[in-house]
Amino acid sequence: MTRFGRSSGTTMNDVAAAAGVSQATVSLVLNGAAGTRFSEETRRRVHDAAHELGYRTNAHAKVLRDGVAGMIGFVGDFVATAPFAGKIIEGAQSRAWEAGLLLLTVNTGGDKALEAASLETMLSYKVAGVVYAAMYHRVLEVPDVLAEVPAVVLNSRDGSGRFPSIAPEEELGGYTATKRMLDAGHRRIAMINIGAVDSGLPAASGRYAGYLRALEEAGVHPEPGLHRIGDGHESGGFDNALALMSDPQPPTAIFCANDRTAWGTYQALAQLGLSIPHDVSLVGFDNQETLAPHLRPGLTTLELPFLEMGRRAIEVLLAGGERDGGNTEYFECPLVERHSVAAPLKVTSSH
Amino acid sequence: MTRFGRSSGTTMNDVAAAAGVSQATVSLVLNGAAGTRFSEETRRRVHDAAHELGYRTNAHAKVLRDGVAGMIGFVGDFVATAPFAGKIIEGAQSRAWEAGLLLLTVNTGGDKALEAASLETMLSYKVAGVVYAAMYHRVLEVPDVLAEVPAVVLNSRDGSGRFPSIAPEEELGGYTATKRMLDAGHRRIAMINIGAVDSGLPAASGRYAGYLRALEEAGVHPEPGLHRIGDGHESGGFDNALALMSDPQPPTAIFCANDRTAWGTYQALAQLGLSIPHDVSLVGFDNQETLAPHLRPGLTTLELPFLEMGRRAIEVLLAGGERDGGNTEYFECPLVERHSVAAPLKVTSSH
Repeated sequence: MTRFGRSSGTTMNDVAAAAGVSQATVSLVLNGAAGTRFSEETRRRVHDAAHELGYRTNAHAKVLRDGVAGMIGFVGDFVATAPFAGKIIEGAQSRAWEAGLLLLTVNTGGDKALEAASLETMLSYKVAGVVYAAMYHRVLEVPDVLAEVPAVVLNSRDGSGRFPSIAPEEELGGYTATKRMLDAGHRRIAMINIGAVDSGLPAASGRYAGYLRALEEAGVHPEPGLHRIGDGHESGGFDNALALMSDPQPPTAIFCANDRTAWGTYQALAQLGLSIPHDVSLVGFDNQETLAPHLRPGLTTLELPFLEMGRRAIEVLLAGGERDGGNTEYFECPLVERHSVAAPLKVTSSH
Repeated sequence: MTRFGRSSGTTMNDVAAAAGVSQATVSLVLNGAAGTRFSEETRRRVHDAAHELGYRTNAHAKVLRDGVAGMIGFVGDFVATAPFAGKIIEGAQSRAWEAGLLLLTVNTGGDKALEAASLETMLSYKVAGVVYAAMYHRVLEVPDVLAEVPAVVLNSRDGSGRFPSIAPEEELGGYTATKRMLDAGHRRIAMINIGAVDSGLPAASGRYAGYLRALEEAGVHPEPGLHRIGDGHESGGFDNALALMSDPQPPTAIFCANDRTAWGTYQALAQLGLSIPHDVSLVGFDNQETLAPHLRPGLTTLELPFLEMGRRAIEVLLAGGERDGGNTEYFECPLVERHSVAAPLKVTSSH
């Protein structure tokens, strides 16, 4: 007997009707056997309908019967407390719970003793696996103790090559962002980076490499003066945008390597009396839900697919953590189109 | 034997020297026996020094010896995934770890079956207590099972009056915000609320009550047309600010009941060509770290003391959860002064 109630009377047919799909689709999606056979939208619709109707999978029925759920440990540095990466937890949490497992999260704040105690405790409680996650993409030293369970490195890469890792596809994102502005007709495209290319940040080096590839593919010679190093904060965007626009030949478009940098750029352009997108076009990176859609005009940006990456980490664990391989699975960052890119104004060259 | 290393050689004297306080102060602060004898700043300095020097308290030494830490459960609706409330977890986490306890967090996303399974599992693992937290301040129905352990309701109030609760002092915050603008010389002060006063949101009703009290105390008759109902989002601030400023006698100051509403108001005023603070003064609420300091000019606002509230929740649990009382402890929201308030321009009345 458990303290919490019985399964609801909702059937798989009810979920299928509400989601507008077949019962077979519901079964495949909810039992995690669908792979990529269905679109993300279909899968989302099925999960939403199941959630709204209170439908319980077999995994949930087992939890309800046994009273105690299996656990997956989630150890993050600042994932739970940083304002941006919550969707990683949301994705991992929802996928774990679909399998009838609880996601127990510890936010270590970078404290190595706390991290060690957390892992030790999780292992002693026989977690089914551990997600080792970072707030931003980097190369991590992963604690040896993780070799004792299925483990996966999330939003970073395991430097030792022992564990499967899941990370965003930075280079392709930088390429896509830059190509969007090239396709709109821009040729003088600046980039405000979030760190130096040699700083060890895959986001800084990867997005810059993609920027260069897109320019070169379009036959545009990259000018070193148009690549500026910010710090990933709003003020880094503000200061660098002011500097770029004071150039005798200012850019007509700017790739801001994250959304906070783009926000600072919006504020600098407003101060200069320049409009977006007509005077200057912008593309950001991250698709921060609290920022990108609320800028005026809405920011065209690349999405960090945190929800999907979080879900995928759990799937890797459920498949046994692919214990024999330390390969990295890269997730494409899709372009989210809003209103910050337009064709350039006709420019009279000053030469 | 445990897998993670030995205690460092740092002594309490080292911490005292680094923090610039006496050894007795370090001892009282780190053992949680200091109460409110020392300022928050002193306590912060001691904790920072201990953290930087890798100093281990007795509680940490015990964890290191035993290998497995005691646990406190933290069940939140969206606290870990919402972009704003992470400091609640940060505060609870750091206070728990000072006592040698791990904070295990489950983010339920509002799913009641997941919540029940989480609590059941936490209880079966003999957690020392449970923090039951909400993303925003409201009156909660708390699950009965929490009566079996020390429990505390965080950032909300227990509707049944059984459990100790910790919540922000909304009315005083609204009063302080409004008084700041009155003291600067404003008389025509609008408020853009984050919901209807009767919506059941303590933040909406409380902050409005404080606004009214400050006006009445200053002998200013509150005009119903100056109180507008937004939705807590940027667009609610934008639309309502445009409407307010189209009044034949627009306000000279606006109390925005949260920072996101203030952000929308900044965008509306910019569109109208009005400057902050010279044309219109603003005060926000929340002190969102990713927003308030980065607006131009920086937003004067009230801080939700999430770090302190999170720490206090753990202290209540460590004291046994005050099992016999369901009182609510209210935390004052301090004014954070930046640059969005100035004296009003001399106005020529249109009457």
